[in-house]
Amino acid sequence: MVQTPYAPVTANVHAALQRIGGRDALVRAWLHVDDAGALAAAKALDQSEPGPLHGVCVGVKDVIAVAGMPLTHNSPLFSGHVPSEDAPCVATLRAAGAVIIGKTDTTEFAAAGRNAASANPHDTARTPGGSSAGSAAAVADGHVPLALATQTGGSTIRPASFCGIHGFKPSWGLVSREGVKTYANSLDTVGWYARDLDMIDRVCDVYGLASAERFDSSRLRIGVFRTPWWDEMAPDGQAAFDSVSAAMARAGIETVEIAGLPEFAHLNDDHRAILFREGAAAFLALARARPDLLHADFHLRVDALATYSDARLREAHDRAAAARVGFERAIAGLDALLAPSAPGIAPLGRSPGEPRFNQPWTLLHAPVINLPLARGDAGMPIGVSLVAPRYDDRRLIAVAREVELRLAAASI
Amino acid sequence: MVQTPYAPVTANVHAALQRIGGRDALVRAWLHVDDAGALAAAKALDQSEPGPLHGVCVGVKDVIAVAGMPLTHNSPLFSGHVPSEDAPCVATLRAAGAVIIGKTDTTEFAAAGRNAASANPHDTARTPGGSSAGSAAAVADGHVPLALATQTGGSTIRPASFCGIHGFKPSWGLVSREGVKTYANSLDTVGWYARDLDMIDRVCDVYGLASAERFDSSRLRIGVFRTPWWDEMAPDGQAAFDSVSAAMARAGIETVEIAGLPEFAHLNDDHRAILFREGAAAFLALARARPDLLHADFHLRVDALATYSDARLREAHDRAAAARVGFERAIAGLDALLAPSAPGIAPLGRSPGEPRFNQPWTLLHAPVINLPLARGDAGMPIGVSLVAPRYDDRRLIAVAREVELRLAAASI
Repeated sequence: MVQTPYAPVTANVHAALQRIGGRDALVRAWLHVDDAGALAAAKALDQSEPGPLHGVCVGVKDVIAVAGMPLTHNSPLFSGHVPSEDAPCVATLRAAGAVIIGKTDTTEFAAAGRNAASANPHDTARTPGGSSAGSAAAVADGHVPLALATQTGGSTIRPASFCGIHGFKPSWGLVSREGVKTYANSLDTVGWYARDLDMIDRVCDVYGLASAERFDSSRLRIGVFRTPWWDEMAPDGQAAFDSVSAAMARAGIETVEIAGLPEFAHLNDDHRAILFREGAAAFLALARARPDLLHADFHLRVDALATYSDARLREAHDRAAAARVGFERAIAGLDALLAPSAPGIAPLGRSPGEPRFNQPWTLLHAPVINLPLARGDAGMPIGVSLVAPRYDDRRLIAVAREVELRLAAASI
Repeated sequence: MVQTPYAPVTANVHAALQRIGGRDALVRAWLHVDDAGALAAAKALDQSEPGPLHGVCVGVKDVIAVAGMPLTHNSPLFSGHVPSEDAPCVATLRAAGAVIIGKTDTTEFAAAGRNAASANPHDTARTPGGSSAGSAAAVADGHVPLALATQTGGSTIRPASFCGIHGFKPSWGLVSREGVKTYANSLDTVGWYARDLDMIDRVCDVYGLASAERFDSSRLRIGVFRTPWWDEMAPDGQAAFDSVSAAMARAGIETVEIAGLPEFAHLNDDHRAILFREGAAAFLALARARPDLLHADFHLRVDALATYSDARLREAHDRAAAARVGFERAIAGLDALLAPSAPGIAPLGRSPGEPRFNQPWTLLHAPVINLPLARGDAGMPIGVSLVAPRYDDRRLIAVAREVELRLAAASI
């Protein structure tokens, strides 16, 4: 290890800033880098008692408020906006000793409209996925070991799959999303990216998520669920998923094929009805105050009542609630469900990609983790999702850890 | 009418400020009054095209962000905090031509901890109720014709009952609560106070709530639901409720006694489990960053996992979702349900009062309106609640209007 003239946290922050300086003209993960603030925070941390995230450098998706940093939502409506308070999800990381490096690029309002400019570090002609584009790219490219994301459809898990990193969307409601742009109350969830499960788990701890109950790791039982949209996946996506499933079986993990789950007939349609109707409330004020600066995508949401009636919204909420119960009954006795994270590798361009493999879990409020276990065409990453019942977040991470250990041991 | 040297909106704002100046030493509705800002806004409005709330003066509960005004949440943690952006629910009113006069006192974080200092204008020894104490008092005392409130348990409807004004809690999810202090994701709802149903309805319009479908106002059918806690009501509360129910029958409204609704066995317990567990996420950051300044009530919530397990939270959510469907089936065919808004008149002191008559509707996501139709001991106001299925908000207001018309006609 190279000796630096700096104390450890300061050295760590210098290294992150250097990496960003050397790479971000290409990757464009960041909308704002707060060199001075990060170095000042590092200096203070180098003189204090270490917390559970002591000196960990963090990127924050630019739909989440960080005190004193621009909060643009990648929208022209917020170009000059600088909040004075951290969002609680940021303040909690800071109180644990993390250093906020800056703000990462995002699809406009983590929703639609403008795409992020960020590139996939594995192939800069391709998207890192969205909406948490910059956060995923920043972690995948080694700028920071941790970045905050959000998911309303597939905005945390899909970029993790495209970028070959670990991404975690916790159960709905466990992490505060105050100070985070609202898109849809019933769906919006703060998630995060890291390069290993240990960091994912440490952040759960900092956010106060209940510890995992012990489980018998010698008898792992994973349900393999190809979803109703399997035929629409790219061939390399199918091959990658099957290779992971086969590797798990070879590694001594019991895999159980899960055929159709009846709940899945309506989940994506109901997700869309709720997304658009809750989006109507979320974007109304902007549509009223500055219609000219609000992207047409959001005017569509504000006018969603014409497409999705009150009766349709009621049906979607009630069917989703019943599906949560039904789904959890269907997977009782399994340690987790294995499902595709995306139809294939990251597409060319800057469009964020297809969310239909992620939306059902968001609507079910289930915790989901992306494991970067496969490759598709051109050697690009494809991940797989492990899913668990609501609030089994920590157990899911423990199961994921066991899966990775077994696969690593089997491949030696 | 007295002629003033001012243009209409400016005159209107002057009158509100004068009323506040004359009364607020006694009523203490306001934490902050922005004379200069309100007069500047009035001047601009006097030179522009009138919007749907042209010149309407508004008080905003101090858990809701208003650009450039202090946002204290009645907590020592936020004593110096001034946000730079309006909450969307405020921006929408402003875009409709409303004038934001200032911030009204609230129970700490609209939740627990410190009580508001506000007094009930009908008897200043008594509470106006809480948590939306100042907003209710400001409307009841004639400072402003409209004030924003929030409800997570009974924080909009109960103060309306205690203060003898109209209060409305819309269906969950229809009005943006971004920029509003989060307490519990599944429950928090922005509501408002006014002195007549016309204003309540106009604000619905501005917030984009679907118009009411026509109904046959000649054959009004109201379910009378005394709730499982009827025996715990004060005698004057029972008498007031029964007098309203009897008056409705005399006025030719068909009243149908609703006996026990099975859903009500668990609603308050489930409300509490969700409230505390979602509150854990909401207050974690403050507990981590400044434990000394956070009231013990909120530390209780942050530690809620010890009291309400993940399994209990799942049960509460699932049972609430089933109760929504069951409740709406049970009242199908009725135009609204009549229920108590509070166990009796406003108590002495500053404690906000008992929320158990309000919490079930909040958990059911149902729209509720308080009608100031009765009096209890010492001539103090007691209201009644009219409740409807989710999203029938505008129809509920139309029904309430018809009820008031009928009662007024019958009493002539």
